[in-house]
Amino acid sequence: MRQVWWNGKLIPESEARISIYDSALMFGDMVFEMTRSFNKLQFKLKEHLERLKQSIKYVRIPLEMTVDELRAACYEVIDANDPEFEPDDEHRLMINVTRGLLSTYKDVDIPKGPNVIISDFPLRWTTAGMGKLFDTGINCVIPSQRAIPASLLEPKVKSRSRMHYLMANIEVAQHKGENNWALMLDPDGFITEGPGYNFFIIKDGVPITPHERNALRGISQRYIYELCIGIVSRANIAPYDIYEADEAFVTATPFCMLPVTSLNGIAIGDGKPGSMYSEILKYWSKQVGVDIKAQIQTWDRGGNVGASTYSFK
Amino acid sequence: MRQVWWNGKLIPESEARISIYDSALMFGDMVFEMTRSFNKLQFKLKEHLERLKQSIKYVRIPLEMTVDELRAACYEVIDANDPEFEPDDEHRLMINVTRGLLSTYKDVDIPKGPNVIISDFPLRWTTAGMGKLFDTGINCVIPSQRAIPASLLEPKVKSRSRMHYLMANIEVAQHKGENNWALMLDPDGFITEGPGYNFFIIKDGVPITPHERNALRGISQRYIYELCIGIVSRANIAPYDIYEADEAFVTATPFCMLPVTSLNGIAIGDGKPGSMYSEILKYWSKQVGVDIKAQIQTWDRGGNVGASTYSFK
Amino acid sequence: MRQVWWNGKLIPESEARISIYDSALMFGDMVFEMTRSFNKLQFKLKEHLERLKQSIKYVRIPLEMTVDELRAACYEVIDANDPEFEPDDEHRLMINVTRGLLSTYKDVDIPKGPNVIISDFPLRWTTAGMGKLFDTGINCVIPSQRAIPASLLEPKVKSRSRMHYLMANIEVAQHKGENNWALMLDPDGFITEGPGYNFFIIKDGVPITPHERNALRGISQRYIYELCIGIVSRANIAPYDIYEADEAFVTATPFCMLPVTSLNGIAIGDGKPGSMYSEILKYWSKQVGVDIKAQIQTWDRGGNVGASTYSFK
Amino acid sequence: MRQVWWNGKLIPESEARISIYDSALMFGDMVFEMTRSFNKLQFKLKEHLERLKQSIKYVRIPLEMTVDELRAACYEVIDANDPEFEPDDEHRLMINVTRGLLSTYKDVDIPKGPNVIISDFPLRWTTAGMGKLFDTGINCVIPSQRAIPASLLEPKVKSRSRMHYLMANIEVAQHKGENNWALMLDPDGFITEGPGYNFFIIKDGVPITPHERNALRGISQRYIYELCIGIVSRANIAPYDIYEADEAFVTATPFCMLPVTSLNGIAIGDGKPGSMYSEILKYWSKQVGVDIKAQIQTWDRGGNVGASTYSFK
Amino acid sequence: MRQVWWNGKLIPESEARISIYDSALMFGDMVFEMTRSFNKLQFKLKEHLERLKQSIKYVRIPLEMTVDELRAACYEVIDANDPEFEPDDEHRLMINVTRGLLSTYKDVDIPKGPNVIISDFPLRWTTAGMGKLFDTGINCVIPSQRAIPASLLEPKVKSRSRMHYLMANIEVAQHKGENNWALMLDPDGFITEGPGYNFFIIKDGVPITPHERNALRGISQRYIYELCIGIVSRANIAPYDIYEADEAFVTATPFCMLPVTSLNGIAIGDGKPGSMYSEILKYWSKQVGVDIKAQIQTWDRGGNVGASTYSFK
Amino acid sequence: MRQVWWNGKLIPESEARISIYDSALMFGDMVFEMTRSFNKLQFKLKEHLERLKQSIKYVRIPLEMTVDELRAACYEVIDANDPEFEPDDEHRLMINVTRGLLSTYKDVDIPKGPNVIISDFPLRWTTAGMGKLFDTGINCVIPSQRAIPASLLEPKVKSRSRMHYLMANIEVAQHKGENNWALMLDPDGFITEGPGYNFFIIKDGVPITPHERNALRGISQRYIYELCIGIVSRANIAPYDIYEADEAFVTATPFCMLPVTSLNGIAIGDGKPGSMYSEILKYWSKQVGVDIKAQIQTWDRGGNVGASTYSFK
Repeated sequence: MRQVWWNGKLIPESEARISIYDSALMFGDMVFEMTRSFNKLQFKLKEHLERLKQSIKYVRIPLEMTVDELRAACYEVIDANDPEFEPDDEHRLMINVTRGLLSTYKDVDIPKGPNVIISDFPLRWTTAGMGKLFDTGINCVIPSQRAIPASLLEPKVKSRSRMHYLMANIEVAQHKGENNWALMLDPDGFITEGPGYNFFIIKDGVPITPHERNALRGISQRYIYELCIGIVSRANIAPYDIYEADEAFVTATPFCMLPVTSLNGIAIGDGKPGSMYSEILKYWSKQVGVDIKAQIQTWDRGGNVGASTYSFK
Repeated sequence: MRQVWWNGKLIPESEARISIYDSALMFGDMVFEMTRSFNKLQFKLKEHLERLKQSIKYVRIPLEMTVDELRAACYEVIDANDPEFEPDDEHRLMINVTRGLLSTYKDVDIPKGPNVIISDFPLRWTTAGMGKLFDTGINCVIPSQRAIPASLLEPKVKSRSRMHYLMANIEVAQHKGENNWALMLDPDGFITEGPGYNFFIIKDGVPITPHERNALRGISQRYIYELCIGIVSRANIAPYDIYEADEAFVTATPFCMLPVTSLNGIAIGDGKPGSMYSEILKYWSKQVGVDIKAQIQTWDRGGNVGASTYSFK
Repeated sequence: MRQVWWNGKLIPESEARISIYDSALMFGDMVFEMTRSFNKLQFKLKEHLERLKQSIKYVRIPLEMTVDELRAACYEVIDANDPEFEPDDEHRLMINVTRGLLSTYKDVDIPKGPNVIISDFPLRWTTAGMGKLFDTGINCVIPSQRAIPASLLEPKVKSRSRMHYLMANIEVAQHKGENNWALMLDPDGFITEGPGYNFFIIKDGVPITPHERNALRGISQRYIYELCIGIVSRANIAPYDIYEADEAFVTATPFCMLPVTSLNGIAIGDGKPGSMYSEILKYWSKQVGVDIKAQIQTWDRGGNVGASTYSFK
Repeated sequence: MRQVWWNGKLIPESEARISIYDSALMFGDMVFEMTRSFNKLQFKLKEHLERLKQSIKYVRIPLEMTVDELRAACYEVIDANDPEFEPDDEHRLMINVTRGLLSTYKDVDIPKGPNVIISDFPLRWTTAGMGKLFDTGINCVIPSQRAIPASLLEPKVKSRSRMHYLMANIEVAQHKGENNWALMLDPDGFITEGPGYNFFIIKDGVPITPHERNALRGISQRYIYELCIGIVSRANIAPYDIYEADEAFVTATPFCMLPVTSLNGIAIGDGKPGSMYSEILKYWSKQVGVDIKAQIQTWDRGGNVGASTYSFK
Repeated sequence: MRQVWWNGKLIPESEARISIYDSALMFGDMVFEMTRSFNKLQFKLKEHLERLKQSIKYVRIPLEMTVDELRAACYEVIDANDPEFEPDDEHRLMINVTRGLLSTYKDVDIPKGPNVIISDFPLRWTTAGMGKLFDTGINCVIPSQRAIPASLLEPKVKSRSRMHYLMANIEVAQHKGENNWALMLDPDGFITEGPGYNFFIIKDGVPITPHERNALRGISQRYIYELCIGIVSRANIAPYDIYEADEAFVTATPFCMLPVTSLNGIAIGDGKPGSMYSEILKYWSKQVGVDIKAQIQTWDRGGNVGASTYSFK
Repeated sequence: MRQVWWNGKLIPESEARISIYDSALMFGDMVFEMTRSFNKLQFKLKEHLERLKQSIKYVRIPLEMTVDELRAACYEVIDANDPEFEPDDEHRLMINVTRGLLSTYKDVDIPKGPNVIISDFPLRWTTAGMGKLFDTGINCVIPSQRAIPASLLEPKVKSRSRMHYLMANIEVAQHKGENNWALMLDPDGFITEGPGYNFFIIKDGVPITPHERNALRGISQRYIYELCIGIVSRANIAPYDIYEADEAFVTATPFCMLPVTSLNGIAIGDGKPGSMYSEILKYWSKQVGVDIKAQIQTWDRGGNVGASTYSFK
């Protein structure tokens, strides 16, 4: 059975449960990161853990662990679980940090102090059903629910106080058609992010992503800079710009990049996954030695992918 | 040991823990109510449960339980725990409803579907240290953190996605002096509520509480209407109005009413608990047969209060 | 053939066309009213014309006609067209006022100065397909498109510069299900109106309609005051309030009142047309001597309604 | 007599009239472009038509015509009308696209479906009285009327739902002095555009125009980039910046560029048309083979300009 | 020569000067009141001084003087100056309170601590030229300059930090026509106040003045409640409401009430001072024993008014 | 005794007092500049005077003096005062410009017209107590008071209408700890400036300062560009960015640069003055021939600094 790292101990996954008296369940007071591996090697783990430290600092959880200690814990849980995984599985980590039991409830028979909880599960859980989207593309839908601006709730802090993300998802599920994913506007009418992914358009050969104001600073988003040698720009993106764009895509850790082929049902470009999108995805795949699209599609077909399916000439 | 009601079963309090894969811990996607008893009789339980049903409806958790079933569950847990309580304890219930395990994690060995979790603990936990405030009053402090307006996150839905409440509390803890409680403005500069309590001023004999826009509709707040036979008004309250008020107080379930004697360190009225405040509190105590202030102060002194301390001539 | 009144002359309906050089087609610079009859008698015509005069005044169209002259023109066109109408038809008037040819285009061979254009057509055109809604109710849907607040474009001026109404309608047409009608929020998140109708909830026996800020002052809306002897209130209405309401309905000149039975797919009350709604509609029908619901449903069935179908015991 | 192209037919200009039942006259639901020629050659016609296609796409008018077909139609009407024009006239096209008759009015005896209407008239109509402004400059005045931000009504869509432009013009006409042109702020207090023109300042040799947020993307505005080999920047421009600027000017298709010599009556720079402005205008004139200023001033004097008045050494 | 009361001493008016190192001249950090007499009797002096105390409290000037002591000082200066006044003069007091010398400048040879400065001058200075407005009425003009909302700068605190009032006045002076007075909107587009006066409309016999949000709580404004036995209401007033009103007027201490006969040049009601306005003014005159209008008009003509010009039958 | 330059005359400092009837004391209607010397040589005096002229232009004070005349006046007062100064003193000038006596008060025995008032005092007055901050750094605190955005009150105009700056200072004085300086957010949640200083972070070797929107354009701020050869960027800076920064500092004329070592009590970088900060300060010191830090610290110790304490190898 899969194990979860909890404050230095490994416990069974089904025991990874947080007391209802923990601040996490009182205020959504938990910060977290979620990672993935390529060929079982964690990708950008240091960047994830540094962002986690920023979140911890911002919300003032008094946790002493360093990035190195957190990293060691991550590898401990991976090592423990790997035998349980399929050979072609990738490790998806969820690293949660809570402030711990509220002092009001100090008489409850539960340990005090912050909790660091690292769980590890197959990435294919998260990507289930996404395989076809690499071919069809996503239809982004702008819900009535607006993103909460950073002045009120900082989205750059990756916290669990994000009911509005779920409300956006629920709203978009009311729309006709398939493959609808929410894309949220801030109150000024600019694109921020989806609930769990960053957004890009490509116009005249340049990937453009929203200003850093009201969205998480995605690690996949930032990796696009690396892949494109910095030829990426930031802008206030309004729906008009998307309709006028040549291509669009979203980025997130589990699927890396998925094409967006329409907005509110109106085709972007020719309504198909864009060629520059495909080039970047291929280059990403090459960098990490995994055919990202093929891996996810194979999982969706229930098939097995070898650890080295992706080779470039 | 205290028991917790969980989907129909009673489990030990220390086992009342929610899986990290539950939607509650992904999005703050849990709605709740917290109640209290007077002389061991639950107060306004029906109103609390009806508000809970509204929260459930708003966030679309597919829960079938009726208000009557919820009420029965509440009494079941009270009956189970009462022998563990001191004779002078009051029962504070925390009723949590989660959407349950996210479908992504369906392979985790955890039951699926919504969870209803009712815990029951001594009210004195919550009121610890508040006894003296009935005499000194609170100094409300307006933090830089603004309330999130209802258009972005509905505060009338009592959810756990409220990191900004905690941030307000942390900020106010940086202020000099004692007895500082946060009082939040909305982005328009009007008083909304504190993190967990409603706010009133009294001006020319009339209690005034903020418009219903950007605050929870407090059950204690509404009870003030009953106690004052409806002579309560709603207004946009700005800090200027508080400085000009004769008295001020806050309301919440555990302590009912506490006086606010200053705002940002500037005295309200004569800087002492107001006489009308005291009258209403006395009347409330009489209605429920418990001297609210004496009970909490006795608990704070570690003393015992009999079940019938409060008698009116 | 139906005739249209144009600056004092009657012309064929198909000739009621406005030059592309008219300010109306440059800026949406046309104000208007639309009325209806009951048993061929115009309803609240004076109120409509007075509101039209306010619109004209606000946008500063230099028109000299008085309300009485406008009324005379209305009756002139009705008299001319009545022989063309079915016996059970009602007269729907559309009264448009444009500023006229922009001076830039003074050399175009078109008359100068404001145009008053009154057309008259069967009300059944407008109500086509609405009959069933009296029984099923409407599902109001809140689109991402927000109402433009009065500080930027005054909705109390009934002008033709309202592309955002159409955008809201188009957006709502993307939603699943049937009978979806747009209900717009202002940027503060409060209900304003639909594109062409006002909105009410009923809570504890009191009809409540939004504050007068960001919506047209509907003549049907105001008539609800008369029918309810003033027991109507104004409030900031948020979606939460609608979910909590007992009933809801919309008002507009052609259909008078239609029940709203859900919001964004969530049932309001028991999800059926409300009893108070039905009472008010019956009372309205009685006042005007026409069974409003039966008339529209009969038209939808292609049947004929006599002029005196509605009698009260 | 001038002809207008209407869905493939040429009709007399005075017959270019749109039914009052067309969506254009219900909602301001018409998108358009206006062009001009230099020496009878259309300028940037392709760019205008591509922008028109974007407007059509955004508002979802189901029009099938391609840019090439639209262009062919433009030339057809020019060819038909040229004999009616003076030898020194330029062709100003107005290309309107409406959604067509609303389905409610399907029984009116009028064709259904979108309408493409291309009219063609002498540019001198539009520029009448502007000749002197090349020498005196414009006094821009900031009215109380704010621009509607793109989040509520997208100004990059060139639609006819723009009553607020007219309201701004009317308001500015109440100001003392002459040559007052409206310059609109958005609700954040930044310059957007005038009703029909874009705005530039020049500071330290660099033309600066507002960020792309809340203004039409002007084709003349973009041409300044070409003329200045890209040395143009975008900024949030507040009135303070204009008072501090060295020069200012506005751009629009009919007059290309006009100097702005004061804002709200306060001189910009030395209060005279700027030297860099003059250089750019000269360069523009050279590029198109027409002395833009001389042409418009000659028309204003009632004189005739030859087709080749402008030659550069 | 007129004397000024300065921290307990009387000094010549020309010496009533505040050091450039006083906080008043660093931050506009001075609060004040201005009063008037009727027949040499101060009107509502207590209300003015109580409001002054609120201002002092809000900005935290550590002044010990009580309302009674302030009142005594007022009468001291009046008594000293009265022999210098004309028999028909009224005493206008200006009561300024500064925080005093900033501690940075403690070495400047100037007394430390708060300053209370009470000057006293003929009311006719302030009302000069206003006489005719009782007959012509004012044309209120809405400038582009918006009122600063209370959340940013509390207008209920009567401070000298009000450059934006002056900017509004300057802007309105650019408008055509005469008798233009600024009337400011808040950023939401609602009427607040003029720079120094409150605003009322009358609709269907009820005086209506803006909600208390973003305007000074005028003492004359409040006196209208007394004169109208409370039949006054509060509302969000937009320009549309003014155009629709029957009458309008402004209130302020020096002139009490002046009619507003147009807004932005558009007539309100019949464009003449309203009858209800005149009734209220007459009643006010009767209450205070001074024909308010006649007194100011007589001063404007350079004539003398006796102390008892106003008698009612 | 120190002299003050007043409209061409030198008067004793204690006589530099402004009439209570001056517009400066009615509306905060005074614009100003404050400068300093290095080794008795004025620094960037021309830039200060040009900015002053922009302020004068913006608020429309009809002053005729040129920058050269203003500069001559500055030197006149410096020459007059220098003998009164310590040898190691620096000259701090305060240049105030008022609109002058309001016309209402024209009968007061005071000169009319604008006033130019230049005072000159030892810089050590202003820097008193700041010496230690070069070593400890400042703790910036974000108050609830927001900066007034430029659309309502232009902060680039250096006026005396800035009560909100003082309110921010007062609020921050309520915080625990020492060395707390206010740092204001605009209503969008972005850093603007402190009351009298600009703000910078350093991230990856690049100094970053807020966009020019809602803050004074500081002359010291701009000098950082010179010192860093333009390697400075502008950004929307939110608190999150500060927590993530490597260093932070503030700039203002008297102290040039002070390190910011924490925000709201959370350490920035390692919580000590940053190394790049120190480098820039050293470079600045070298450019002006004064060891800025040593000079201020010496003054604080009551010691004397020679005019040439700072020499570079």
